[in-house]
Amino acid sequence: MSDNPVVGIIMGSNSDWPTMQAAARVLEEFGVAFEARVVSAHRTPDLMFEYADNARARGLKVIIAGAGGAAHLPGMVAAKTTLPVLGVPVQSKALSGKDSLLSIVQMPRGVPVATFAIGEAGAANAGLFAVALLAIDDAELADRLDDYRAAQTQRVLDMKLDLQ
Amino acid sequence: MSDNPVVGIIMGSNSDWPTMQAAARVLEEFGVAFEARVVSAHRTPDLMFEYADNARARGLKVIIAGAGGAAHLPGMVAAKTTLPVLGVPVQSKALSGKDSLLSIVQMPRGVPVATFAIGEAGAANAGLFAVALLAIDDAELADRLDDYRAAQTQRVLDMKLDLQ
Amino acid sequence: MSDNPVVGIIMGSNSDWPTMQAAARVLEEFGVAFEARVVSAHRTPDLMFEYADNARARGLKVIIAGAGGAAHLPGMVAAKTTLPVLGVPVQSKALSGKDSLLSIVQMPRGVPVATFAIGEAGAANAGLFAVALLAIDDAELADRLDDYRAAQTQRVLDMKLDLQ
Amino acid sequence: MSDNPVVGIIMGSNSDWPTMQAAARVLEEFGVAFEARVVSAHRTPDLMFEYADNARARGLKVIIAGAGGAAHLPGMVAAKTTLPVLGVPVQSKALSGKDSLLSIVQMPRGVPVATFAIGEAGAANAGLFAVALLAIDDAELADRLDDYRAAQTQRVLDMKLDLQ
Amino acid sequence: MSDNPVVGIIMGSNSDWPTMQAAARVLEEFGVAFEARVVSAHRTPDLMFEYADNARARGLKVIIAGAGGAAHLPGMVAAKTTLPVLGVPVQSKALSGKDSLLSIVQMPRGVPVATFAIGEAGAANAGLFAVALLAIDDAELADRLDDYRAAQTQRVLDMKLDLQ
Amino acid sequence: MSDNPVVGIIMGSNSDWPTMQAAARVLEEFGVAFEARVVSAHRTPDLMFEYADNARARGLKVIIAGAGGAAHLPGMVAAKTTLPVLGVPVQSKALSGKDSLLSIVQMPRGVPVATFAIGEAGAANAGLFAVALLAIDDAELADRLDDYRAAQTQRVLDMKLDLQ
Amino acid sequence: MSDNPVVGIIMGSNSDWPTMQAAARVLEEFGVAFEARVVSAHRTPDLMFEYADNARARGLKVIIAGAGGAAHLPGMVAAKTTLPVLGVPVQSKALSGKDSLLSIVQMPRGVPVATFAIGEAGAANAGLFAVALLAIDDAELADRLDDYRAAQTQRVLDMKLDLQ
Amino acid sequence: MSDNPVVGIIMGSNSDWPTMQAAARVLEEFGVAFEARVVSAHRTPDLMFEYADNARARGLKVIIAGAGGAAHLPGMVAAKTTLPVLGVPVQSKALSGKDSLLSIVQMPRGVPVATFAIGEAGAANAGLFAVALLAIDDAELADRLDDYRAAQTQRVLDMKLDLQ
Repeated sequence: MSDNPVVGIIMGSNSDWPTMQAAARVLEEFGVAFEARVVSAHRTPDLMFEYADNARARGLKVIIAGAGGAAHLPGMVAAKTTLPVLGVPVQSKALSGKDSLLSIVQMPRGVPVATFAIGEAGAANAGLFAVALLAIDDAELADRLDDYRAAQTQRVLDMKLDLQ
Repeated sequence: MSDNPVVGIIMGSNSDWPTMQAAARVLEEFGVAFEARVVSAHRTPDLMFEYADNARARGLKVIIAGAGGAAHLPGMVAAKTTLPVLGVPVQSKALSGKDSLLSIVQMPRGVPVATFAIGEAGAANAGLFAVALLAIDDAELADRLDDYRAAQTQRVLDMKLDLQ
Repeated sequence: MSDNPVVGIIMGSNSDWPTMQAAARVLEEFGVAFEARVVSAHRTPDLMFEYADNARARGLKVIIAGAGGAAHLPGMVAAKTTLPVLGVPVQSKALSGKDSLLSIVQMPRGVPVATFAIGEAGAANAGLFAVALLAIDDAELADRLDDYRAAQTQRVLDMKLDLQ
Repeated sequence: MSDNPVVGIIMGSNSDWPTMQAAARVLEEFGVAFEARVVSAHRTPDLMFEYADNARARGLKVIIAGAGGAAHLPGMVAAKTTLPVLGVPVQSKALSGKDSLLSIVQMPRGVPVATFAIGEAGAANAGLFAVALLAIDDAELADRLDDYRAAQTQRVLDMKLDLQ
Repeated sequence: MSDNPVVGIIMGSNSDWPTMQAAARVLEEFGVAFEARVVSAHRTPDLMFEYADNARARGLKVIIAGAGGAAHLPGMVAAKTTLPVLGVPVQSKALSGKDSLLSIVQMPRGVPVATFAIGEAGAANAGLFAVALLAIDDAELADRLDDYRAAQTQRVLDMKLDLQ
Repeated sequence: MSDNPVVGIIMGSNSDWPTMQAAARVLEEFGVAFEARVVSAHRTPDLMFEYADNARARGLKVIIAGAGGAAHLPGMVAAKTTLPVLGVPVQSKALSGKDSLLSIVQMPRGVPVATFAIGEAGAANAGLFAVALLAIDDAELADRLDDYRAAQTQRVLDMKLDLQ
Repeated sequence: MSDNPVVGIIMGSNSDWPTMQAAARVLEEFGVAFEARVVSAHRTPDLMFEYADNARARGLKVIIAGAGGAAHLPGMVAAKTTLPVLGVPVQSKALSGKDSLLSIVQMPRGVPVATFAIGEAGAANAGLFAVALLAIDDAELADRLDDYRAAQTQRVLDMKLDLQ
Repeated sequence: MSDNPVVGIIMGSNSDWPTMQAAARVLEEFGVAFEARVVSAHRTPDLMFEYADNARARGLKVIIAGAGGAAHLPGMVAAKTTLPVLGVPVQSKALSGKDSLLSIVQMPRGVPVATFAIGEAGAANAGLFAVALLAIDDAELADRLDDYRAAQTQRVLDMKLDLQ
């Protein structure tokens, strides 16, 4: 983790970390400074508000928030900051993350949360999306996104299929 | 509405009032003092925290919170008070309240929200449940609950069916 | 289990006990006297009615009922007593507790069941909610709820994340 | 309605009658004696138990029970009688009868409820199924079922399609 | 299996047998003569029609049909006989039997299929329901159903719960 | 309708015709000879089998089958012919065609049904797909499909948006 | 619409415009230059690719894409540009936008689409989120977002509830 | 794989190959020449368009496309060719292929994708359907389809059930 983070990755519990780590890895790969913390909407509500309130002043430009079940963290952080908030539905036990997805994406008009796929793929994509935001006015980062995509394309082109 | 309310009814918007009114009517019928206010998790987060923080000190004994879509109000109020919180999923447009229900009921371990049915029936039942809570140690109120049930039973017994 | 229980925990089968035990453990932790019994809506209907009919007279103040699939136990107990009934949807095999949840929460107007999350988290929260009910007029118990929350908050604040 | 009914049609409210009437009409068409009554699992639980307990002795051979939402009537009647119970999920407001269906069909091992489609088609089919049960050992009624089917087939064969 | 079966148990594949066996076991326990065969709606459609066409003449009184996925067997058999058809949704791989359930229960008006729970519990209950049908006019069998229920009740009454 | 149809459009009831007409209109527009008939899986099972059995000999090359609810028509026709069968889920009342979709698409290995979207769009697309099948070895028809697509593209290109 | 748009709003058909207009209105209110066009993934695929390919060079910084049913527009545009793509699930007829939501949000790792709520609220929030992105490094726009939020909060604080 | 393929099997990743192989095996069994390639809608969009654009000219007559999650491959290929496209929903992790199914089947009017069951059964059926298409005007292939069906029927007829 980095000294002057521009992306904050938060999640309701350390049990969400195996999922949310995928976002951290993408940011690391792009050299984007980030921090990762446990901030729980339901168990540390005051910390959550404080985190959201201070985020812009602390230099954060984007917040990635992961949560499962009645997943209130992304939406409540979005209620307390006008920074872009990216929500990642963590796969839940009984309902496989369908509850997490609906709790995050169905935000009312006025307070947006950008939502990604359930689970690790969604966390990785939230990381990539954060890079894309930062690349809007950063040509060098945009170039690296292009390179990342090109490498990804090449990996698919190299895949082989063998009929067994 | 009453001077020294013991039940607080809150909801995210006045568009939830046609639903939540059913809770108010039940309380009125039982002579239980209540207040009803618009408190939005996403649009008035600070008011929400303040409301929850002060609820017990202000004399409230139960909070009924209604919300639709990504319905975070009941769970966030429950995160800020140890008073019993009753959640009512308001029927949403696209998903008919299924999103509201899951956002309210699937709370993580440690912060309970008592959830009722989607829509008006759920609001009325939250009102009745609030009365039941208050009746635990109030024999007179418990008797009135019995009378209410008896009248309800009688209405069913009096129903007629005519084959057309 | 205690001599003069104020909370009754019932469930349709001993196979629900691994889930419902979470409620029992919370009550034990708070020193709230409770009893736990198998009472099946479908296989011991008369016992169920008797249990509900006598609950208040026996000194119970709250009933926690867990059931899975076509989960009728919480609703039917609620039909026979005006004590507060807390319903816990047990995770079912084919439908992962979605059937249990809808069978419990979608009660008609007039007979409320306070519903909690599917599975163990819901059972634990039903236990906590029972404590919250009893704490309404019990300042000492309310203080202990505050302490419980504070300890819970501290555990989250102490969580560490390590990028592997 | 008939003097010595062999089929009992029950439902939780007279608001279910527009749906359940379809069962009554089928029985009427076949000349099968039936009765139709409002019996609510949640609002008249004692009447429900009494109805189920006495059903066989009163000469009933089949019970058709319709209910919506947390639809407990068919399953609870089945818990109190060994007569065949046919369940009809009434279309509910928020969830279109999906809650009613799951609450009726997902009965645990040991207490069967024969479940039919959501709404009027299901009620009509419950009526037809009741006739089929009675026709098992009644060759004349079986013949009339055959005639009913033949007429139904003919109506389909007579349908015309015009491209507009 | 018995010489003069009155119940026919059919299923689309021998992979459904672990589920459907639960119906067979119930019938065996009650001494009801049955047969069990693989009859596939999609892979042996002519056999299916022939089976349904001849069922009543062969002395069958009830047909129990189990199927998974796009489960057409119960409905198509019901289309070809006026005997009571009991449908059992077998748990499917991707959708856990929700597809099986809807394919069986949502029959159109005119051709009823009595549907039971997804999986083994549903199969056992279809067996019990078959017994209940046969017991309508068979007091001895009805008595044995009562005994079966009483034993079932006793097993629940004997269950113990130990807090670990 | 045409003298020597190569496409057969069938549906379970004339109430499905407003939906299925969309398939007929597409075929008409391409000048593909077709027939449209009511053939019900449940109410005219023998006609259905006869229709499927004779389809290839009668010169049909493709069958489009529409059905709603427990939609067995497409799958059962596919069980009786090796001609390509295209299934259209008709929008049902309670479950909006979700039951129709699952009943049609979840066919077991060995008997394929090509499934299209719920409702009128699906019916139109089944018609277009039938044209595409016939165009595999018919260059002229393939050209007309290209023209159809080009016109469709042009209609989109011509769409205007005005901010009101 | 503006001369040098920085936000591109695209949708699959002009029938999506009543929904997507909510995004346009928000941008207009904030004075953010945008363009709105019909670009269909399925009916104008080449235009879609060209649009995505040229977007960055043309000066666009964000793309908002709305689509319903099998909603491929947002994901395919995201596959062809590294600009941030915001997806809006338009409410579909049969499945109320549940299909649109899943088609947009469940993107595989490597190609992110930021997804918002089904329907008009989601479109408005996509507009607000686009403003938030542009405000990351634009203090004046960030201030106006704060004002927007403050006005929104005030509107909620001013809401009145009257028990009728 | 064969030199002059008439069927193209494509999929978004080699992780889909265990599922899609079932289609390949069916084609192999029928001696139908095919090719199998990884073509990803999101990671190789240009290759996908090129593949679809050249498919007819290269001699392909049918394309089978498998994809999971936000499964855009079948629909986007269908947007770029008028050859018949068969879509196979690959079972996804969190939502078990329900997302894949809706993303493939709910195509808008004008661009059809023939959709099959989720997972391996669907892939095998897509293979069989491809054979059926090619058999429309190929009597010898049609005969082999009949033989395949006959063998399949025989395997079912030979199944034995033993009560354990």
